[in-house]
Amino acid sequence: MRSENFIERIFNNDKRAISRAITIIESGNSNSTELLKDLHKNIGNAYRIGITGPPGAGKSTLTNQLTKYYRKQNKKVGIIAVDPTSPFTGGALLGDRVRMSEVGCDDNVFIRSMATRGSLGGLSKKTIDAADVLDAAGYDIIIFETVGVGQSELDVAKAADTTIVVLVPESGDSIQAMKAGLMEIADFFVLNKSDRPGSDTAMTALKTILMMRDHTEKSWLPNILKAIASENSGTKEIVDEISRHHQFLEQNGLLKQNREKNYKVRIKEIVEHLLKDEFWKERRAESLQASLSKVVEGETSPYQIAETLFNDFKTSIKQ
Amino acid sequence: MRSENFIERIFNNDKRAISRAITIIESGNSNSTELLKDLHKNIGNAYRIGITGPPGAGKSTLTNQLTKYYRKQNKKVGIIAVDPTSPFTGGALLGDRVRMSEVGCDDNVFIRSMATRGSLGGLSKKTIDAADVLDAAGYDIIIFETVGVGQSELDVAKAADTTIVVLVPESGDSIQAMKAGLMEIADFFVLNKSDRPGSDTAMTALKTILMMRDHTEKSWLPNILKAIASENSGTKEIVDEISRHHQFLEQNGLLKQNREKNYKVRIKEIVEHLLKDEFWKERRAESLQASLSKVVEGETSPYQIAETLFNDFKTSIKQ
Repeated sequence: MRSENFIERIFNNDKRAISRAITIIESGNSNSTELLKDLHKNIGNAYRIGITGPPGAGKSTLTNQLTKYYRKQNKKVGIIAVDPTSPFTGGALLGDRVRMSEVGCDDNVFIRSMATRGSLGGLSKKTIDAADVLDAAGYDIIIFETVGVGQSELDVAKAADTTIVVLVPESGDSIQAMKAGLMEIADFFVLNKSDRPGSDTAMTALKTILMMRDHTEKSWLPNILKAIASENSGTKEIVDEISRHHQFLEQNGLLKQNREKNYKVRIKEIVEHLLKDEFWKERRAESLQASLSKVVEGETSPYQIAETLFNDFKTSIKQ
Repeated sequence: MRSENFIERIFNNDKRAISRAITIIESGNSNSTELLKDLHKNIGNAYRIGITGPPGAGKSTLTNQLTKYYRKQNKKVGIIAVDPTSPFTGGALLGDRVRMSEVGCDDNVFIRSMATRGSLGGLSKKTIDAADVLDAAGYDIIIFETVGVGQSELDVAKAADTTIVVLVPESGDSIQAMKAGLMEIADFFVLNKSDRPGSDTAMTALKTILMMRDHTEKSWLPNILKAIASENSGTKEIVDEISRHHQFLEQNGLLKQNREKNYKVRIKEIVEHLLKDEFWKERRAESLQASLSKVVEGETSPYQIAETLFNDFKTSIKQ
């Protein structure tokens, strides 16, 4: 099913080939590994932007505006939207995707949604792999659009070169709820819908939180930009800030350093997948299942079972 | 450092021994494995209650009231509070802990905070191990108090026999923010501070969300109880609902089944820890580090590196 031709078609931005490649990645079978190996030589030219924030902050609208802006600069834009598991917001996201159809017909824009449902943990891996396909296909800009709620989504955002956290004036208490994780990954903030009441209070709150942030690690200070994405207000400033951050990273050798760090996390994830697959082959999975009742009864402990399984694993490799 | 005597002291509710045992578990060294194996034979009598919800919902106050109530029934209560990573709410939690001092002087109440900072992933494991210490020490009720924001915290809540999600009238939009994860683990809800404005609206919203929930799996329908924890209003009803849920689980064979499921997750976690430890011994960790630059340059792919490391692992076990 893979062939020189298939890889060539991806390199030539053949959207059907790209779609199929991402579907292979989503399936997570061994073909995806081979595929990614073949694609890797063409990778590393795309600039990756993470856009995250609470539900309803206007991330899709902003992504839409950024995409149109980059298209005017003749840049090819790939978008990977990570949809949350929640069945309750599913409808809204579908609406967002429809809205995106404005840019979706463009030959040099590729949009793909990836669902988190049932793929906890594996999601960030697959999302980043999908970005690699777009990178190899020659997309200059790759935007990850995620709802910043789970660890997976944060992992995706961290895999970006520049991460933008989008908030709205009302998200004052969301700042608490979303906890520090979201605040700490932002390279800059966009206060969207900034014409709404409470905008100034939100700015002040954000600035206060930023002042409390630990700045010792690097000298980049996250800005807060105002925007009204639905009216395309603030888009240029956001693109400029992305460029400024990109330059900062380049000049300080951080772009390469961050990417190395991300690859490290990623390789570890791949290794751990391989380990788990190898470990939980039928026999040991069955043996675990059979022992559970004894653990609940107190006859043996979880640690004892784990150790027995682990020793069995080692023995089976030796054979 | 471990001795028959140490284990005996834990079985006899010696608080200093219990504290030391939990500290050993937090350190995560090999002593903790031996300790847990020794304790396991005394485990399985405690009923485990998870209390989770957004920051500020009054979880600590509620835990306090439940504890006093159970003490009147002469039950021994262990509390494990999982503090969030956020540096911004650290103060508030400290306050909560101080407030808890009311019950903290009781010989048959044991309170322990476990911090999430820097222990992502390993936290749920350590928290549940700590609960095992309290279980072995003869505590009848163990309460996990967690802020329902991260996967770790959700994992802790899932490890409970009964999980209570605490919300406040104002958390209407938190429901969105906290996403379905929190809604789906609740065995019942407590709408705390129910004398505040918006209480009825919040009840309606909650009921609507619950109606949308998938109920096919089991026939338990989560209730919503009103409470004002600060005035000890609703405490009896909550304790009754816990009992009712406990009975439901017993009568349907679900208590054992759920505990088996939890042990399964836990044994898998332990195994994966063992695997990672064995895998990332010096040599392979160094080899990974040395290869990163080549991956960024596109000379080799993450999958290629992972495979090489994996093969090296297998070879080293064979030797």
